[in-house]
Amino acid sequence: MRIAVDVMGGDHGCGVIVEGVKLALNADKKIAELYLVGDQAQIKSALTRSQLQDARVKIVHASEVLTMEDKPVEGLRKKKDCSIARAIELVKDGQAEAVISPGNTGGIFAAATFKLGRLPGVDRGGIATVIPSMDNEFVLLDSGANIECKPLHLLQYAVMGNVYSREILGCKRPRVGVLSIGTEDSKGNELTLEAFQLCKLLDLNFVGNVEGHDLFKNHVDVVVCDGFVGNIVLKTCESLATGIFFMLKRELTRNPKRKLGAFLAQNAFRTIKRRMDPDTYGGAPLLGFNGIVLKAHGSARERAIMNAVRIASEAIEHSVTCLISREIARADELLGRAKTTAPNSVPA
Amino acid sequence: MRIAVDVMGGDHGCGVIVEGVKLALNADKKIAELYLVGDQAQIKSALTRSQLQDARVKIVHASEVLTMEDKPVEGLRKKKDCSIARAIELVKDGQAEAVISPGNTGGIFAAATFKLGRLPGVDRGGIATVIPSMDNEFVLLDSGANIECKPLHLLQYAVMGNVYSREILGCKRPRVGVLSIGTEDSKGNELTLEAFQLCKLLDLNFVGNVEGHDLFKNHVDVVVCDGFVGNIVLKTCESLATGIFFMLKRELTRNPKRKLGAFLAQNAFRTIKRRMDPDTYGGAPLLGFNGIVLKAHGSARERAIMNAVRIASEAIEHSVTCLISREIARADELLGRAKTTAPNSVPA
Repeated sequence: MRIAVDVMGGDHGCGVIVEGVKLALNADKKIAELYLVGDQAQIKSALTRSQLQDARVKIVHASEVLTMEDKPVEGLRKKKDCSIARAIELVKDGQAEAVISPGNTGGIFAAATFKLGRLPGVDRGGIATVIPSMDNEFVLLDSGANIECKPLHLLQYAVMGNVYSREILGCKRPRVGVLSIGTEDSKGNELTLEAFQLCKLLDLNFVGNVEGHDLFKNHVDVVVCDGFVGNIVLKTCESLATGIFFMLKRELTRNPKRKLGAFLAQNAFRTIKRRMDPDTYGGAPLLGFNGIVLKAHGSARERAIMNAVRIASEAIEHSVTCLISREIARADELLGRAKTTAPNSVPA
Repeated sequence: MRIAVDVMGGDHGCGVIVEGVKLALNADKKIAELYLVGDQAQIKSALTRSQLQDARVKIVHASEVLTMEDKPVEGLRKKKDCSIARAIELVKDGQAEAVISPGNTGGIFAAATFKLGRLPGVDRGGIATVIPSMDNEFVLLDSGANIECKPLHLLQYAVMGNVYSREILGCKRPRVGVLSIGTEDSKGNELTLEAFQLCKLLDLNFVGNVEGHDLFKNHVDVVVCDGFVGNIVLKTCESLATGIFFMLKRELTRNPKRKLGAFLAQNAFRTIKRRMDPDTYGGAPLLGFNGIVLKAHGSARERAIMNAVRIASEAIEHSVTCLISREIARADELLGRAKTTAPNSVPA
């Protein structure tokens, strides 16, 4: 397996990414080549500092960085030699099978769209986010790439999320739902009502509409929605969880008795914190492209990068790209068949 | 002040509502009349059980109940003598100034729309929900009534939410934001982009777009969005908070050491639980109607009903309906002026 890692553009600099890569290389002997893409001098210095000497590591120099302030498309046009573009080109040219970047999400998405291109039959790429629930986790997509969605896009997200949940999260027969405001067929907006009807035609384990209430109750494994709703849900959850833990900390340190209590129970808090830590999930996959693309959190530290590399490696091993391609074609066939047999029952 | 309470349609039966009313009457001497609307026999029996003897209490018999399973409009047409309809008619007929119901949300909204009617200039009523954040709370609207919104509806929600936050929650100069996917003017979908431009024209303390990340960080006091997004956000927050507290409980009871820690720190958990308890906020106001309408939680218990009556009383005292009417007219005037001076810069 050959993986390209954009070491620039993260909040904590190149060194942290290289440390994460070192952990991943030690854990995974199946990785044949690992490209570190970015400023050569910084990479060399980070390699020395981390004492990473591994013949599998190759440096690919990129003289520029797409920052969080750069507008995606404009930035990519101006900064032709930016690390994210170079890293994605390695996949395009067949030198790597997967790419990981902690940089500008829009930039990664745009580079994937323009340089790798979408898989045949995929109308829009999507960003999937793995969100922990009480006993397992669910995949939410789209998390913010595709703001104005069509019903067919949601259907394709259902297919892609299903593959990801099954192959990477090990969910045998993922329960797939459309995020809406009531579980009945009749509840929702124009987009979700039509997406519901389309998803019913597929051979997924489609559970229909799911509500906000269902998300953290182990009712669903793949949740599809447009990128506007998905982005708001994702960020609201992050904000609320942070808020609750902030309040907990504040209340638990108010007096010595509570502090002692918190000390005795500290492992309970650690377990929950680890469970809810986005670093566990390594990053958000961009699905629907000709290659495996993972967006690591901007604030990703060593453990997050290690997990991102592990997930990239699993995605390669499970041929996720190929499976998505095949299952999108199958969905297309099922839709075509439904249109032939009952043309009026299938939304356009 | 005269308040009507629909005592039917809650999950815990009429007795709990009557107990809540008793607490409220004891606390608030300004209430002149309190109508208990529902099955007369059940109400009489509940009054006896709770030993509530108060000359301010009047029973209004209603022979039917709109259940959670009833479709709102159809249900209201079939069950002409249902408690929610009768309670709202008391406001319509001028016998009461406010109505509280724990029943079918859609039914209450439909009854308010058809029987009370909207205030002049208000295009759509909305459901506002008060959500606790770390140090205070914010108002989210619409929380699920108006699924397909126009930009002007969001503008009117901004005006109405501003009045509610200022008058009932005591926020001096509420910060009003449009829920979107980035803080820049250019981020959002068609609806929020136009709503942003409209809200800028008002004399609100408009803070522009807010993201999911901002909700629990004390960045905003009034958050406007369409009812689809608002309903998903509200239910997702409830589900996540429940999930976190479930995990906490599970982890804190895993072994004797943790149990002891949790026991010592129990007041910390209680403080947070109380803070996040929807009962504190008594219910969700339906804004934009010719009268004060509060939807109590279906599972509302005594404390929730007591708080709902308190809020209804404050809303009457602060002339919330009248203020909304006046400030909607003022917004209309500002929009009209902007259209005259710069017709192309104002979205239609």
